[in-house]
Amino acid sequence: MTKPDALIFDTRGGAFPSPQLAPVSAVQLTDAFWAPRLETNRVRTLPTQYLQLEETGCLDNFRRAAGQEGLKFRGWVFADTDLYKWLEAAIWALASGPLPELEARIESAVALIEGAQDTDGYLNTAFMFDRAPERWATINTEGNNHHELYSAGHFFQAAVAHYRATGSERLIAVAKRLADHIAVAIGPGEGQKHGVDAHPEVEMGLVELFRITGERRYLESARYQLDARRGMGRINGAEYPFLPIREYDRLVGHAVCAVYLMAGVADVYAETDEPALGALLERLWANMTQALMYITGGIGPRWDNEAFGADYELPDRAYAETCATVGSIMWSARMLVQEQDAKYADLIELSLYNGFLSGISLDGQSYYYQNVLGDDGTQRRQAWFGCACCPPNMARLFAQLPGYFYSVAPGCVFVNLYASGEAHLTLPADETQEAREVQLIQETNYPWDGRIQITVQSEGKFSIALRLPAWARDVSLSINDEALPNPVAGDYARLTGEWKIGDVIVLDLPMPVRQIVAHPRATSLFGRVALMRGPLVYCFEQEDNPFVDVRDIRITPTSKFTPELDQGLLGGVVALRGDAGVVNEKDWAGALYREASESGEAELEARAVTAIPYYAWANRGAGAMAVWVKRG
Amino acid sequence: MTKPDALIFDTRGGAFPSPQLAPVSAVQLTDAFWAPRLETNRVRTLPTQYLQLEETGCLDNFRRAAGQEGLKFRGWVFADTDLYKWLEAAIWALASGPLPELEARIESAVALIEGAQDTDGYLNTAFMFDRAPERWATINTEGNNHHELYSAGHFFQAAVAHYRATGSERLIAVAKRLADHIAVAIGPGEGQKHGVDAHPEVEMGLVELFRITGERRYLESARYQLDARRGMGRINGAEYPFLPIREYDRLVGHAVCAVYLMAGVADVYAETDEPALGALLERLWANMTQALMYITGGIGPRWDNEAFGADYELPDRAYAETCATVGSIMWSARMLVQEQDAKYADLIELSLYNGFLSGISLDGQSYYYQNVLGDDGTQRRQAWFGCACCPPNMARLFAQLPGYFYSVAPGCVFVNLYASGEAHLTLPADETQEAREVQLIQETNYPWDGRIQITVQSEGKFSIALRLPAWARDVSLSINDEALPNPVAGDYARLTGEWKIGDVIVLDLPMPVRQIVAHPRATSLFGRVALMRGPLVYCFEQEDNPFVDVRDIRITPTSKFTPELDQGLLGGVVALRGDAGVVNEKDWAGALYREASESGEAELEARAVTAIPYYAWANRGAGAMAVWVKRG
Repeated sequence: MTKPDALIFDTRGGAFPSPQLAPVSAVQLTDAFWAPRLETNRVRTLPTQYLQLEETGCLDNFRRAAGQEGLKFRGWVFADTDLYKWLEAAIWALASGPLPELEARIESAVALIEGAQDTDGYLNTAFMFDRAPERWATINTEGNNHHELYSAGHFFQAAVAHYRATGSERLIAVAKRLADHIAVAIGPGEGQKHGVDAHPEVEMGLVELFRITGERRYLESARYQLDARRGMGRINGAEYPFLPIREYDRLVGHAVCAVYLMAGVADVYAETDEPALGALLERLWANMTQALMYITGGIGPRWDNEAFGADYELPDRAYAETCATVGSIMWSARMLVQEQDAKYADLIELSLYNGFLSGISLDGQSYYYQNVLGDDGTQRRQAWFGCACCPPNMARLFAQLPGYFYSVAPGCVFVNLYASGEAHLTLPADETQEAREVQLIQETNYPWDGRIQITVQSEGKFSIALRLPAWARDVSLSINDEALPNPVAGDYARLTGEWKIGDVIVLDLPMPVRQIVAHPRATSLFGRVALMRGPLVYCFEQEDNPFVDVRDIRITPTSKFTPELDQGLLGGVVALRGDAGVVNEKDWAGALYREASESGEAELEARAVTAIPYYAWANRGAGAMAVWVKRG
Repeated sequence: MTKPDALIFDTRGGAFPSPQLAPVSAVQLTDAFWAPRLETNRVRTLPTQYLQLEETGCLDNFRRAAGQEGLKFRGWVFADTDLYKWLEAAIWALASGPLPELEARIESAVALIEGAQDTDGYLNTAFMFDRAPERWATINTEGNNHHELYSAGHFFQAAVAHYRATGSERLIAVAKRLADHIAVAIGPGEGQKHGVDAHPEVEMGLVELFRITGERRYLESARYQLDARRGMGRINGAEYPFLPIREYDRLVGHAVCAVYLMAGVADVYAETDEPALGALLERLWANMTQALMYITGGIGPRWDNEAFGADYELPDRAYAETCATVGSIMWSARMLVQEQDAKYADLIELSLYNGFLSGISLDGQSYYYQNVLGDDGTQRRQAWFGCACCPPNMARLFAQLPGYFYSVAPGCVFVNLYASGEAHLTLPADETQEAREVQLIQETNYPWDGRIQITVQSEGKFSIALRLPAWARDVSLSINDEALPNPVAGDYARLTGEWKIGDVIVLDLPMPVRQIVAHPRATSLFGRVALMRGPLVYCFEQEDNPFVDVRDIRITPTSKFTPELDQGLLGGVVALRGDAGVVNEKDWAGALYREASESGEAELEARAVTAIPYYAWANRGAGAMAVWVKRG
């Protein structure tokens, strides 16, 4: 058993030696942006979600499986995953400080899970008693099944988290029995079930369980899931080509399935170095970021089957499921620790601040399943969903978030994300050097301001590598007020030296308002523009612009936007205020189409308009919202 | 029993006295556009569809209901409607000439239906034997049921068609027993089931059955369906406000349901004159045409629940179900015969030539369920569907089509549509005049050419009213070479006089190529343009423009398009050839978003491009297609 208290994905190394993410408990955020959200997650989101687990029958399903009488199974066949994700979230949330009630609920959940496991190691409350004969019955190579492996995968992740955060082996013991059961029941051998789950997830869990226990058969089970699979993400009846996964040249099908699968591929690749998997990961990550991704980091435009569409298919009415953004972050995190390429941390940052954070209300108690980029005011957050995958997935990522801020490698600490706080890190040993402690203090008003000051609290020779986001221009970087030459945006700036306690690094990332356009092949975005500042995507909401339907706003070549910090607005945000053209479309009265020659130049009335960060939309009265507005 | 051999919807009259559509058999089309399509429908589409009815079990379901042993029910619970729509299509198809095999199949189908009816009048092959206890069991005021009334409605339409076309009362007898059963089983009274069908359709059938039989309880049953209904079109689980239908101010929900409902409302309104229904029809028809309709006449953009979206939500990946266009035409036809306003015939024409005709291949044997307006080459027509509503709906409308060309009223014949052919019409009597025969000959190459010559073959005093499409400019109209002043596009030009045999009316509708833009609120169409000529929408298909991805074509302010008749292309079409700008997007390599300031003016390379009529797309090799291309 190895490495308690670390949110890690890889120990293999690559261009950089063995980077891994920081332990969650090693990073204490104290900033005004994330720290309050993480505290809301701890004290409001997790308790209200627990009530949902009780109300929807999720907890009763475990009690029933453990033998309590008079209960019926309720919910989807994968309802167990609601508890597993909540449990993982609760476990990591305790890294930020004790919460006795939460600890008691974790203890109770651990006991529930122990009690629900069958004597042969099987664990899934949907297939007990009269439905026990259905176990593994629908598994096949195209993945049309009951999501038993998907549920197992989420349990493995929760068990690993429990061990890493607390050192307890109680859930690991349950997990090993289940993983041993799976290794016997499913595989390529005679007498085994041949097949995979429609919903990938177990691959990640099995590899992590391998990393903790050293049991290679868990890694083999994970690899078998990739080898046996035909098709990438088939759910909701949609039809896509069923290829062996190594043969895909683009992401297809159910978006959450596809990115969870790629995260699992990354885990298997990290442990096997199979070149075909490495090439697949590079190819599909490029496809996602170059042709399939919303400006918010959201993915999967299609409402009909929660799926990826054609290249450049990016309608305003995005599906962009919150879980898909979470899955994209999980995938990029695994790529990051293998290659420590800044592009992966750039995408994590973009996704966190926009397509992820839009999924939850400021009060932490209602959620978007779909994250549209334009709306007439009808799409609102909900307290829960019949298929409640997204809410506990958000709680889990919030709780893990401190671990994403830094990567550690022998002799080097990588600063992936920016927020005020303290980090107490251990750089691991390698052949040439011993492990060493490194403490850093970050001070910044990021993402509202791009000045970041890092005070070194450890001495000795090591490297500090700062991510310079690709969106940045005119970056400046100094050590103890001495400017460093030519920092390159889109890369880590690696500062190596003999550090003294009190050394101060200042990174300045100017944050002008950027007017962003999309690739011309993205036809629905042609002639339109979106505003960004720093990592944040902005939107126009009706509430701030009552004199116009926000969809009629046009940004002209002379429009200038100014950032203004407004502490009273939406929990404190930098709003963008500027002049835009507002068009009176009244001359269209009654017409939906007309000849171009009838349309003169639109008469623009200059008006002061206000944009707010996209993540904060729909926290006031219902009204129209637009990320993309017209140019011209 | 009244009015054999007429495809009629109304006998009430309005601003014009009692217009009604012409009998199907009264109009013989001889043109090069529609006549071959109608013949394909008779000799290829209907026979291949019959084979599908056999293969999918639809016919066996009737045999089973009639007592044949060893058969299981197959298909959706509304599978019977496939036969009913096919039967109605076959019946009207015989108006164009005898086809012995088709007649035999009609006879056989009539006998099958007679045999399948239960002794109490109930008729639905899905709820026989062991499922008989489920009859009407799921009916409720929000319409979540088994589509038994929907199926009954299609049967009533087929029975009415059989009677009108052949004079036979065999199916009318079955229909009366079923309608009597329904009038007893369902209604507002004590001991009756209170509720409606999720899928409207029965309203139209009941009103037509009332018109033929004079039985007011059928009209009352239809009106009850409207009165009891909460909600417009709820299918596939989507949630919409459940209002009493008279309260809606826009179309919502399942598009086919919504327009079928409105067609039924129009039928009930025609017989009751209830002002709230008349206002509803005007309000929602305006909403559809001013905010919800694709340029092709297609409606219902959403793939997730086959539904209407927000106003101006018109993504290229349209759902635009073929049945929804058929339903829209049925609705407009009912509005047309009540008001004889040219706008309804304009929409019928637009829908027929574009959003309807795109639903079937040139060979008449494969179909689109969804009619997208832009594609990367993956969306192709299919031979049949698991839910096969669209194919027989198309066959039916093709077969009825001659009846749409003219409306007749006392003293006036309205020319609604243009194609070469002969019409032998009877203008009905009213208080002031007797009925009279009117024969007309149309000669035209419409829609390829806008010159229409109508030769009067009857003498006497009556009016001939010609629709001048709203798209027309510089219309000229003459009688015996004498020009008439100031014809007004968008209205009927009513020519009244003492006609002599051999009088010649010439209507000239110039057909320049029109560049069409959409309302600026339709954000996905902003900065884009589509080509139209006459009633036809054009598209760019990869096959004709191999040197460029058609989605990269830009039409510039100086682009000029010329119509060129090409008899060898796609069965003979007028293609549009012109110069467009083609953009090399290579400088975008690897980027999906970038700052607007980085984008200079696109460098356009002038290239000759070719557009074809939209209806004819996807009849060659798979490739990209675009209706809307960029401007600039």
